[in-house]
Amino acid sequence: MKLVKAEIIAIGDELLYGQIVDTNSHWISQELDLIGVKVVRKTTIGDNRTDILAAFAEAEKRADVILITGGLGPTQDDLTKPLMAEYFGCGIIEFPRAVEAVTAFFKQRGREITPLNILQGHLPSCCTYVPNEVGTAPGMWFEKNNRYWMSMPGVPHEMKKLMKDFVLPKLPTVFSLPVIYHKVIKTVGIGESWLADLIRDWENALPEHIRLAYLPSLGQVKLRLTAFGTVRKKLEQEVAAQIALVLPQITSYVYGYDEETLESAIGKLLKNSGKTLALAESCTGGYISHLVTSIPGSSAYFNGSVVPYHNQFKENLVGVKSETLSAQGAVSEETVLEMAQGVKKLFGADFGLSSSGIAGPDGGTEEKPVGTVWIACAGEGFVEAKKLQLSQDRLLNIQITGVAVLNLLRICLIQNNK
Amino acid sequence: MKLVKAEIIAIGDELLYGQIVDTNSHWISQELDLIGVKVVRKTTIGDNRTDILAAFAEAEKRADVILITGGLGPTQDDLTKPLMAEYFGCGIIEFPRAVEAVTAFFKQRGREITPLNILQGHLPSCCTYVPNEVGTAPGMWFEKNNRYWMSMPGVPHEMKKLMKDFVLPKLPTVFSLPVIYHKVIKTVGIGESWLADLIRDWENALPEHIRLAYLPSLGQVKLRLTAFGTVRKKLEQEVAAQIALVLPQITSYVYGYDEETLESAIGKLLKNSGKTLALAESCTGGYISHLVTSIPGSSAYFNGSVVPYHNQFKENLVGVKSETLSAQGAVSEETVLEMAQGVKKLFGADFGLSSSGIAGPDGGTEEKPVGTVWIACAGEGFVEAKKLQLSQDRLLNIQITGVAVLNLLRICLIQNNK
Repeated sequence: MKLVKAEIIAIGDELLYGQIVDTNSHWISQELDLIGVKVVRKTTIGDNRTDILAAFAEAEKRADVILITGGLGPTQDDLTKPLMAEYFGCGIIEFPRAVEAVTAFFKQRGREITPLNILQGHLPSCCTYVPNEVGTAPGMWFEKNNRYWMSMPGVPHEMKKLMKDFVLPKLPTVFSLPVIYHKVIKTVGIGESWLADLIRDWENALPEHIRLAYLPSLGQVKLRLTAFGTVRKKLEQEVAAQIALVLPQITSYVYGYDEETLESAIGKLLKNSGKTLALAESCTGGYISHLVTSIPGSSAYFNGSVVPYHNQFKENLVGVKSETLSAQGAVSEETVLEMAQGVKKLFGADFGLSSSGIAGPDGGTEEKPVGTVWIACAGEGFVEAKKLQLSQDRLLNIQITGVAVLNLLRICLIQNNK
Repeated sequence: MKLVKAEIIAIGDELLYGQIVDTNSHWISQELDLIGVKVVRKTTIGDNRTDILAAFAEAEKRADVILITGGLGPTQDDLTKPLMAEYFGCGIIEFPRAVEAVTAFFKQRGREITPLNILQGHLPSCCTYVPNEVGTAPGMWFEKNNRYWMSMPGVPHEMKKLMKDFVLPKLPTVFSLPVIYHKVIKTVGIGESWLADLIRDWENALPEHIRLAYLPSLGQVKLRLTAFGTVRKKLEQEVAAQIALVLPQITSYVYGYDEETLESAIGKLLKNSGKTLALAESCTGGYISHLVTSIPGSSAYFNGSVVPYHNQFKENLVGVKSETLSAQGAVSEETVLEMAQGVKKLFGADFGLSSSGIAGPDGGTEEKPVGTVWIACAGEGFVEAKKLQLSQDRLLNIQITGVAVLNLLRICLIQNNK
């Protein structure tokens, strides 16, 4: 089986000048890896005719698939479309379906379409028009000399939609790709090196055709198993057998597999047990509520939350005792315990969660430096608090606290269900 | 003055397979931009002899400065050093100072040096050895045919140290560098094509040495002006004059410049006017509170928020009338107006903001389809509501509503200050 090679070309001066980070190329790399297409090069170039045409010509020599992002807006500095027409030697013509789609896109939003936007429905005559349902710049697919090209907007969610709906399903129909099977084990509450120590013997005994990768993110580590072969069913069984072997060693850290997120896993636990949740967030300022409510259907188990950013609201709204605040301070075990119990009662929920800490960069003291955070969970007949000592970085502190609070709830839910 | 062009080459299989994000290239871009070196291309390639040598040869044709990261570890899959020796046609020899440095590095950390690590002090004879004080792989500087090459480790803090200590001070000594000045105008509440229509005449009349780029993101568009010249002060004045020309046409959309975010701009407006804020978030579920509290020092103007996810809490906690909810429904102008007024009162704030909508993917009706959102702002003696008709995507709807609510507050604050 011939290896299918891909090159990713990102176009935009703003990428070269470092004004925005190109997250697209990384995401595309990961997705292509999952279907067995090998990325051999990533190229970033500016909004410049010569450079863009040169990059196309070079990529054609190296790769079977060329994926292009950016340079597709309606304004004058966007060159991708005219240069693709030039490169493939065809004119730009009106694609009635594309004009219709961009017109409908504006109409749906109750906005007037401009002449510039109508031109977004004019495309190189030699391309296949790929509808963009979430934006105004269409995708363009080209086939020439056994090379396959796709041009996509640089806006990440538009690019991802075009990749998922069109490119990723399309590639296996034009190439014979190897069978690669991935399974991701999601863990929380244990660091990468501790996890590696725990499962070293198992890892070393993995067969040659099953690879393990550690993918750490904030407070979480994903274990990705990748199996290579020819029969998918067989690979699935082999990977399942390996997971059964390792699971007893890490079971308390595992919250799900593959696309599961910590917030969706918790949603399922709550839904299945018919329980409800309320939150009192101080230092996390609404971040955890946002995570919980980002899950479709979360209204079934999320009652609501309060962000009592000052002591008077912790007292008046959530019912923290005035004596607790004056004696222990807002960032204390006693305060978060009372916040969790108070918000549980306020929203008539089965579980109450709370956070209070010094997110930084200011507000630290010798006794309670920046990064000191208390979190708590209250349920029927129990309360549990935990102290975290985090970093100097405000946003990191908020995000890591979010993961820790959700993990505390996860543990409470599992214990509660026993 | 000749434009000095740079290419950044990142080497490593892990970058192509999407296992780690290349943050180095972005950082290097920003630093080179500041000293007037123009990055013309970024290339990412794997640990592969042919690809690396080809990338070197291509880069030499395009660029005056070639900065290489990665592929410098002690193991066999790290190819940068031998291939640079091969490319420049020289042998690898012991650099006694480099061997000394790597030996000292291990000694200082109380660890035994291995034979593999000693070899890190052996370098191509044609390079200038650049000490790496924070790691074991040295930097290597090459000069040939008026091209300047630097090879650095891929570990971000090691690369940054070598850039700051050596490359960035070195480049102005070997080139006569131009001055490049950037200014970014941040706008909200107007789409890219409308903005382009508004300012077309001004854009077309920009002088040759000042370029404009549109950088759109969710609900916002950045306008980046880039000026090229020799005297920074003069460029700053010229760009300021251009901004003064365009500002009257777009002033109501402009919330700030450069690193300003919408939430930090609002923070400044609130702080400067000594006003405070409270939020009642239904469909946005805490997201806007998170944005507001992500700004250091936000406790000075953010009193708190409530996420009343069910009607009973909109009624009991925020004071929406039972009749309003039964007659108009939770997603209605009347409800968001009462929510904004109610939460303003609950937290004793100067401004109350609210959101209520059908974020999706479920819950839509014919009359109120998914994506129907009402938002409101209440201040002293005024209230204002606005309807949004958004997409099918839950997270996008939450994020775009967040931008719209903050923009509504911005407008209210400006009107209030008049």
